[in-house]
Amino acid sequence: MKRYKHLIGAESKDLIERYVSSTEFDTALAKHAAAVMLAHIEALARAGLIPREPYEAMRKALKEVVATGGESLYSWIGDREFEDVFEALELYLYDVAGPDAGRAALGRSRNDHVAAVLRLAARERVLSILEQMLGVRKALIEKALSNKGVILPFFTHTQVAQCGTAPNYFLAHEQAMADAWRAVLHSLEYLRQSPLGSGASAGAYLRIDPSIVEQKLCLDPDPIPPYYATGSRLFLIYTASAVVTAMTELSRFAEDMITLLITVPEGVELPPTHISTSSIMPHKRNPVTLEVARAKAAGVIGGLTALLATYKSLPYGYSLDFQEMNKHFLRILEDAEETLQVIRDFIEGVRLMAEGLEGFVRRFPCWSSDVIEHVAIETGRPLRELYAELAHELHSGGGGAGQASDFLHKYGVSDPLEVVKRRPSEKGIDELIERAERRLRGDEALLKTLRYRHEECMRNLIGEEGAG
Amino acid sequence: MKRYKHLIGAESKDLIERYVSSTEFDTALAKHAAAVMLAHIEALARAGLIPREPYEAMRKALKEVVATGGESLYSWIGDREFEDVFEALELYLYDVAGPDAGRAALGRSRNDHVAAVLRLAARERVLSILEQMLGVRKALIEKALSNKGVILPFFTHTQVAQCGTAPNYFLAHEQAMADAWRAVLHSLEYLRQSPLGSGASAGAYLRIDPSIVEQKLCLDPDPIPPYYATGSRLFLIYTASAVVTAMTELSRFAEDMITLLITVPEGVELPPTHISTSSIMPHKRNPVTLEVARAKAAGVIGGLTALLATYKSLPYGYSLDFQEMNKHFLRILEDAEETLQVIRDFIEGVRLMAEGLEGFVRRFPCWSSDVIEHVAIETGRPLRELYAELAHELHSGGGGAGQASDFLHKYGVSDPLEVVKRRPSEKGIDELIERAERRLRGDEALLKTLRYRHEECMRNLIGEEGAG
Amino acid sequence: MKRYKHLIGAESKDLIERYVSSTEFDTALAKHAAAVMLAHIEALARAGLIPREPYEAMRKALKEVVATGGESLYSWIGDREFEDVFEALELYLYDVAGPDAGRAALGRSRNDHVAAVLRLAARERVLSILEQMLGVRKALIEKALSNKGVILPFFTHTQVAQCGTAPNYFLAHEQAMADAWRAVLHSLEYLRQSPLGSGASAGAYLRIDPSIVEQKLCLDPDPIPPYYATGSRLFLIYTASAVVTAMTELSRFAEDMITLLITVPEGVELPPTHISTSSIMPHKRNPVTLEVARAKAAGVIGGLTALLATYKSLPYGYSLDFQEMNKHFLRILEDAEETLQVIRDFIEGVRLMAEGLEGFVRRFPCWSSDVIEHVAIETGRPLRELYAELAHELHSGGGGAGQASDFLHKYGVSDPLEVVKRRPSEKGIDELIERAERRLRGDEALLKTLRYRHEECMRNLIGEEGAG
Amino acid sequence: MKRYKHLIGAESKDLIERYVSSTEFDTALAKHAAAVMLAHIEALARAGLIPREPYEAMRKALKEVVATGGESLYSWIGDREFEDVFEALELYLYDVAGPDAGRAALGRSRNDHVAAVLRLAARERVLSILEQMLGVRKALIEKALSNKGVILPFFTHTQVAQCGTAPNYFLAHEQAMADAWRAVLHSLEYLRQSPLGSGASAGAYLRIDPSIVEQKLCLDPDPIPPYYATGSRLFLIYTASAVVTAMTELSRFAEDMITLLITVPEGVELPPTHISTSSIMPHKRNPVTLEVARAKAAGVIGGLTALLATYKSLPYGYSLDFQEMNKHFLRILEDAEETLQVIRDFIEGVRLMAEGLEGFVRRFPCWSSDVIEHVAIETGRPLRELYAELAHELHSGGGGAGQASDFLHKYGVSDPLEVVKRRPSEKGIDELIERAERRLRGDEALLKTLRYRHEECMRNLIGEEGAG
Repeated sequence: MKRYKHLIGAESKDLIERYVSSTEFDTALAKHAAAVMLAHIEALARAGLIPREPYEAMRKALKEVVATGGESLYSWIGDREFEDVFEALELYLYDVAGPDAGRAALGRSRNDHVAAVLRLAARERVLSILEQMLGVRKALIEKALSNKGVILPFFTHTQVAQCGTAPNYFLAHEQAMADAWRAVLHSLEYLRQSPLGSGASAGAYLRIDPSIVEQKLCLDPDPIPPYYATGSRLFLIYTASAVVTAMTELSRFAEDMITLLITVPEGVELPPTHISTSSIMPHKRNPVTLEVARAKAAGVIGGLTALLATYKSLPYGYSLDFQEMNKHFLRILEDAEETLQVIRDFIEGVRLMAEGLEGFVRRFPCWSSDVIEHVAIETGRPLRELYAELAHELHSGGGGAGQASDFLHKYGVSDPLEVVKRRPSEKGIDELIERAERRLRGDEALLKTLRYRHEECMRNLIGEEGAG
Repeated sequence: MKRYKHLIGAESKDLIERYVSSTEFDTALAKHAAAVMLAHIEALARAGLIPREPYEAMRKALKEVVATGGESLYSWIGDREFEDVFEALELYLYDVAGPDAGRAALGRSRNDHVAAVLRLAARERVLSILEQMLGVRKALIEKALSNKGVILPFFTHTQVAQCGTAPNYFLAHEQAMADAWRAVLHSLEYLRQSPLGSGASAGAYLRIDPSIVEQKLCLDPDPIPPYYATGSRLFLIYTASAVVTAMTELSRFAEDMITLLITVPEGVELPPTHISTSSIMPHKRNPVTLEVARAKAAGVIGGLTALLATYKSLPYGYSLDFQEMNKHFLRILEDAEETLQVIRDFIEGVRLMAEGLEGFVRRFPCWSSDVIEHVAIETGRPLRELYAELAHELHSGGGGAGQASDFLHKYGVSDPLEVVKRRPSEKGIDELIERAERRLRGDEALLKTLRYRHEECMRNLIGEEGAG
Repeated sequence: MKRYKHLIGAESKDLIERYVSSTEFDTALAKHAAAVMLAHIEALARAGLIPREPYEAMRKALKEVVATGGESLYSWIGDREFEDVFEALELYLYDVAGPDAGRAALGRSRNDHVAAVLRLAARERVLSILEQMLGVRKALIEKALSNKGVILPFFTHTQVAQCGTAPNYFLAHEQAMADAWRAVLHSLEYLRQSPLGSGASAGAYLRIDPSIVEQKLCLDPDPIPPYYATGSRLFLIYTASAVVTAMTELSRFAEDMITLLITVPEGVELPPTHISTSSIMPHKRNPVTLEVARAKAAGVIGGLTALLATYKSLPYGYSLDFQEMNKHFLRILEDAEETLQVIRDFIEGVRLMAEGLEGFVRRFPCWSSDVIEHVAIETGRPLRELYAELAHELHSGGGGAGQASDFLHKYGVSDPLEVVKRRPSEKGIDELIERAERRLRGDEALLKTLRYRHEECMRNLIGEEGAG
Repeated sequence: MKRYKHLIGAESKDLIERYVSSTEFDTALAKHAAAVMLAHIEALARAGLIPREPYEAMRKALKEVVATGGESLYSWIGDREFEDVFEALELYLYDVAGPDAGRAALGRSRNDHVAAVLRLAARERVLSILEQMLGVRKALIEKALSNKGVILPFFTHTQVAQCGTAPNYFLAHEQAMADAWRAVLHSLEYLRQSPLGSGASAGAYLRIDPSIVEQKLCLDPDPIPPYYATGSRLFLIYTASAVVTAMTELSRFAEDMITLLITVPEGVELPPTHISTSSIMPHKRNPVTLEVARAKAAGVIGGLTALLATYKSLPYGYSLDFQEMNKHFLRILEDAEETLQVIRDFIEGVRLMAEGLEGFVRRFPCWSSDVIEHVAIETGRPLRELYAELAHELHSGGGGAGQASDFLHKYGVSDPLEVVKRRPSEKGIDELIERAERRLRGDEALLKTLRYRHEECMRNLIGEEGAG
C-alpha cells in the first residue's frame, strides 16, 4: 500500500506508480468495495469494536458511495493518485471519521475484500448478461414464430446441404443460447462463496458475524479455506470461460448472417441501423455490427487466454498479477453484455424474404437426402443404391436441381419440397417451439428470483439503520 | 466421402487424402462409432427396415468392435486408407452383410452420428476425469489429516505472508478441485443430448425410436433442433473449458511445490519417483513431473485457444474444421487425465518435514497480522496505529522475526505462533476437514451412480438379443 | 536422467516415466542429436581426449544414425523406455564403445546439446518451409499470368466492393507469402547461434574447438552467453510466430476461395482432388482441404499460445517445460509444411471461369468508385457531390447495377468496366507481375545457397575420415 | 460511413453507433490520419485538382492537427459522435474549406488511408520501443560491468545448478533483448510499404505522385498489390508477434528476480520504488512491478491471440473486424513500451549483495560439473565414472556442499569455486561484454539514423510551404 510505503523504506516514482496503480480502472469496483466495507464495519460495530460516532460517519459516507455507484468517492479522489480503490476508500474513511477509521482494519485484509468485491461486481454483471441472453432467446423464438413455413437453406461445409424452415434455424441458435445460459448460470455457484474473514492468505484473527455477510451481501456464510478464498480466481476463470463460450455462438450467428447475405442477398434484409456504407462505393451495405460482434468474440478469446496464461503460472496466494486479470475479466463481461444487446437488436430487426429464399433454394437439390430416404422406404431398396442413382443423374447433369427430374419422375415425386416438409423435424416444429418457450419462461422466473434476492440484500445493506 | 467421390467427379491424391483423413486419430472413437451404429440398426430392424440375416451379421460385427475397443475394425482396415472411421465402418458392414448394409444409411447421416459418437467418447473420458479428480481430492484430505499441526508458510506476492497449518493448505487445493469438479460435472448435461435423427443439418426423413437411444446409449430422448445438434460443438467447448480450468489449478499446485522446494528445501521431500537428476550435476533433484504438469497446463490452454479460434469463425452446419477440433479436444482430455493421475501420486508421496518448516517460518514475522489484531482487540486501540508501530520496529531492525521482541514484550505476547493457532481458520480446521470429507463422499456416491448408469446402457447395448 | 536416478535415491514408476518421457516424440530429433554428438566427439578426439578405437566405434554408429535419419538408433532402442533420445543415445554409445563412451560427456551437457539439436532440426524444417512457400508463390504468379483479363469481384466487408482482374488478386496473396517468407527467413539468424559449450547453464569447463561447430554443423562459432544459450527459447518462439503468421494468410486464402465458391459457384472450379461429397447428399461438393487448412491455422495459433504461455512464466535455466514446448513447436512446423503443399496443389489446380465471373460482377456497380473519380476529374466537380448523386440513384433503384444507367448516360460512360480497366492498378499489372517474378527468382537463388551450405556441412560431418 | 448512411436507407441508433464507433479509441491515430491527408491533398493540389484557397485552409487545419497530436481535431469534435477519426476528419475539412473539401476524396478511400495511418502510428511506437529496448540493454551491460566477480547461482529446473558470475547473468538477458531487438527492427520493413492509391480494395482510379509519399511520409514509393495493401494486416501481426516475444523475455527476467528474492533474500535488494508492502503485514516487501510486468506479458499474449483469432478467419478485403484489431495492437505496443521503461528502471536500481550471494552459493555443490570435468581431464578417466563417484558421496551425505570434501580432497581441489572461475565462460567474460557493447553501439547508431529519417519526413510534411 502506497500509504505505508515509507514504513518499510519504499519510495515513490511516478512512472512506477502509474504502472502498478489500478485506481482508474477500479471505477467498476468502487460501489462494491464500499458495500463490502459497509457490511464489515456494521459487524464490527455490532461487536462493539467501533464507537458509535465514527461508525455513523463512515456508514453515511459508504452508503453514499454505494448509492452513487462510486461517484462520491471518485469526486473526493480528484487528481490524487492511489494504488487502488481500496487504498483510496480507506483514506476517505480517515477523512470522514478521523483516527477511528483505523479500527475498520480489524478482521480483514485487502486480499479477502478484493476477492469479495470482485465476486459482487461479477455477480451483478452476470445477472445482466443472463438477462440479455434471455432477451436474445426471446427474440429468436419470436422470429421462429413469425417465420413459420419460410424455407431456408441449411448449410454444411458452407455449401447448401438441406433445406428446412426458418423456425428450425432460429431454434438452433435459441438452443445454443439456452445451453450457454446454463453454463453462465452455474458461475453464480462460485460467486456466492464468501472470502470474508480469510485475511491476507491464512485467515484473519477476528471472525466477524457471518450472518451479516449472508443478509447484506448475499454471500454464503459457510467458511471456505482462506488460502483458496484469497488465492484462487477459479470463479473468475470459470465465469469468463462460460461467457466466452456464449460469445463464440453469437459470433457464429454473425457468420451465418454474413454468409446468408452474400449467398442469398435477395433473401434477407438487415435492420437499417445495422448497416453502414462506404465512403466511396455508394452501393455497399456493410454488415458492420456483425463484423464487430465476431471480432469481439475473438477479443474475448484473447482475454481468456490472457487470464489463463497469467493464472496457470502463479503459486498460491494473492499476487498483483490478479489486478491485471481483473481488467481482462471486466472487459470480457462488458464486451459480452454489449454484444448481446446488439445481436438481440439485430435479430428483432432482421427480415427474411420468403420468396427470395425459396427461389434460391429451388436451384439446389437440397431435398436429396429426404427424397432418397422417402424412396428407400417406399420401394424397400437399400438407400445407398438410390443414392448412387441420384448422384449419377445429378453429376451428369451438372449438379443443378432441375436435372434430377428423371429421378423424381421415376419415383413419383412431384414436388420434392413437399417431401421435405414431411420430415419429422419440420412436422414437430410446433412442439419444439413450445418446448423452447417453456424453458424460456422457467429461466425468466429463475432469474427474476435471483435478481430479487440480490436487490433485497442491497436494500438490507443500505436501508437499515445499522448496528446500534 | 472417399467412396463416393467418383460419383461427383472428384479424384484422389495421396497428399490430399492424408491431409483430410482422420482415420489414424479416430481410434479413440471407433468403439463409440460402433455403439451408435449398433443402436441405430437395432432401431431399423425393429421397424422392419433391415432383414434379419444381414442385421444379425452386422450386429455381431459391431458388437465385436465395441467389445474390442475398435480393434477388430482396425485389424480389418489394415493398410487401407479411409477418410475417417465412419467411412471405414460403413464399408466394413458391406463386407460383413453385403448390399443390405446399404440399408443402414436410412435415418442417419455421418454428421449426426459423429456428434453422438463424440458425446459418448467425451462422456467416458469425463467420467474418468471426474474419478481422477476425486482421487486427488481424497489424497489432499488425507494429507490434511496426517499433517495436523504442521506449520507452513502461506505466501502472497511469492513472499512469506502469514503462517498456518498444513491442513489449511491442503484444503485450499481440495476446495479448488471440488469447485472444478462441479464445473466438469456440469458438462454431462450437454453430453447427454442426443443428436441422432438430425441428419446432415436439418433433420433425417426417418425418425428412429428414441427410446432405444435412451436405453442403449444413455442419451436423452428429447429432440433438440437438428442444426444445433449437428452444427454446434458447444458441448465440446464447455467440457474443454472446464477441464482447462481444473488444469490451471493443478499447475498452480505444481508451482506451489516448486516454490516451496526452492524456498524451504529442508521442509519438503518429494516422492523419489517424481524427481530426476542431471547428467552432469549429480547434486540436482529436479521436480520433473511438476514441470511437465505445468507445461501441460499451458498445452491445454493452447488446445482451448485452438478450439475457440476454429469455432468462433464457422457459420453453422458441420464443417471439416470440426474434425481438427476433435484432435485438440481429445488431447486436452488425455493430458488432463494423465496429469491428474500423476499429481495424485505426487500428493500421496510428498512429505512435509515439520521441523524444517517451523524453523524456516520462525525466521519471519508471519504472525504480524494476527498479533496486531489480537493486541488491537485487547487494548482497544485502532489497528492501524499498532500496524505503524510494528512496521517501524521491523523496518528499523531489518525485517527479521527476532527484531520485533520489543513489540511482543510490550504487549505481553510470549510466543506469537500461539496467537496464530487461536486464529479461527486454525481453530475451525476440523470442521473444515469434515465438510470436505462429507462433500467428497457425496460426490463419490454421485459419480458411482453416473458410472453405473453408463455401464448399464452399455450392457443393454451389447447384451441383449436385439430386435427380432 | 533415468540412468542416474538411483545415484540420488530417485526411483522409477511406469506412470511417471511415461509422463516425463519424450523418447517416442523425439524421433524428429534423433538424426540431429547424433549429428551434434558426432561433431562433439570429433572435437574431443582431435584434442586427444578420446582414444582412437572407441572414437571410431562411436563415430561409425553415429554416422549410421545420421544417415538413417535415426532409424538405427530406434531399432536398438526397441521396447526399452528412456527419458529421451539423448539418454538413449548415450547408452547406445556405451553399448558400442564400452566404458570409454563415458568420455564423450566431457565439455557438454544435455542442455546445450538439446539447444543445438533443436536449432538444427528447426533449420532443416525451416528450409523446407521456405521452399514450400516459394512453391506457393510460384503457383500464384503462374495463376496471375494465365488469368490476365479475367474479371473478379474484390470484396470489402464480405460484400462485393470493386472489381478487378485475377492477376491483381493472385499477386496480393503472392505479396503476403513474400512478406511472410522474409519473416520466416529471419529466423535463420537465430537458428545459427551455437549453444555448444554452454554446459548446463553457466558454461562447460572444457571448451571444444569452435571451428568444428562451424564447419560441420553450420553454426556460428561466436560464443553467446551460456545462460541464454541453454535457457532461452527465443529462437523457437520467433520461428513459430513467423510460421503462424504465414499460416494465417494461407487460412485467409482458404476463406477467400470458400467465399468465392458460395458467392459465384459458376465462376470457380475447385481441383477435383480437393473436394469431397456427402454420404447422403450427392449434390454436395465440399471444399474439404480448405476447411482443414483454416482449421490447422487455428491449430497452430493454439500451438503458439501454448508455447508463449509456457515460456513467459519460466525463470531462466533449462526446465522440463521446454520438452513439452518442443512438441508444440514441431507440430506447428509440420502442420505448416503440409498445409503449404496442399495449398500449392490447390492453387495449381483451381480454375477460374471468366464468363461466370463477369456475369456475376456485372450484376453489381463494382465500378462505382472508379466511375465517380473519372467523372470528378472530367467535370471538375467535387467527388463527394457525384458520390451523393450516384448513391441516390442506386438506392432509389434498389442497388442493382443496371439501375445507374441514368448516371452513366449523363456522364457519357458507355461501359463502366472499361473505366475500371484504365485504373492504374490494372494498367500497371504487367510491371507488378514482373516485380513479383524478379523477387521470386532472387529468393529462389538465396534459398538455394542456404540449402547448399547446409548440405555441405552435413557432408563435412559425415563424409570426412575424422580426427585421427 | 455514418454521414452517408441516409443515402442507402440506413438509420442511426445510439446503442449501435457506440458499438461500431472507434472515435474514442482513435486518439492514438488522429495525428497520423492528418499527416496522411496532408500529403494527399498536397499531391492533389500539385496536380491542380484542388483550388488554392480551400487547399490552404485545409492544409493549415491539418498541420495543426499534426502539430497538436490530434488535439485540435478532438476539441472540434467535442461531444459529437462519429464512426471513426477518418469520418470526423473529413467533416472537419468541410467545416474548414466548404464543399471543396469534397475534392479531397479523389484518389483515395478510407481503407487505403487507414492502412497507411496504422503503419505510421505503428512505426512511431516501434521506434520508441526499439529505443526503450536499447535502454534495457544498456542497463544490463552496465550491471554486468559493475558486478564483475560477484558469484550468482545459475538455475535449471528452478534448482541451483551451477554458479557463475553476475556479468554472465546480465549478458544472457542482454543477448535476449538484442535478439528480440532484431525481430522488432525487422517489422520496419513492413511498416514502410505504402498502401496509398490502393483505394477500397482493387485500386484508386487516380494515382497521386508517389514521390510525395516517399518524401513526406517516409513510405516506399513502389506499388504493392492493392488488395494486399488494404486487405492484409500481416505488418500488424508480425509487429505484435515480435513485441510479444520481447515481452516474454522480460517476463522471464521478472520471474528470475522473484525467484532470486525468495531463494536468496540476503543476496538481492530491490529498488525501493519497486516494492510495496501489505496493509496488514508490515514485514512484507512485495515485488509489485515485477508481478505487473509478467502479468502484462500474459496480457499481450492474449492480445496476440485476439489478433490471430480475428485475422485467420477473414476473407480478403477490409472488414470492420480490423478496427477491433487496432485496439489490441495499440494496447500491446503501449504495454510493451511501459513495461520496458519500468524494467529498465528496475535494472538500474537493483543491487546484488556479493556476500549474501556467495554465502548462499557455497551451501550447494554448484561447482560439481566443473570439478568433474577438471578431474576427468587431469586424471584421464571417463567423466561418467567420476560423476558416479561424486554422486554417491553427495547422496550418502545428503546433498549439501560440505559433504563432498572427500572427493575434493582426493583429487586435490582446495576451493572448488576457483575451478569455476577457470571456466571459459568466466575467463572470456570481458570479451563477451565488449561484444555486447559493440553491438549496442551499432544498434544505437542505426536507430538514430532511422529516427532522423522519420523526423525529416515529418519536417518535410509540416514545414514546407506546400504545392502552389
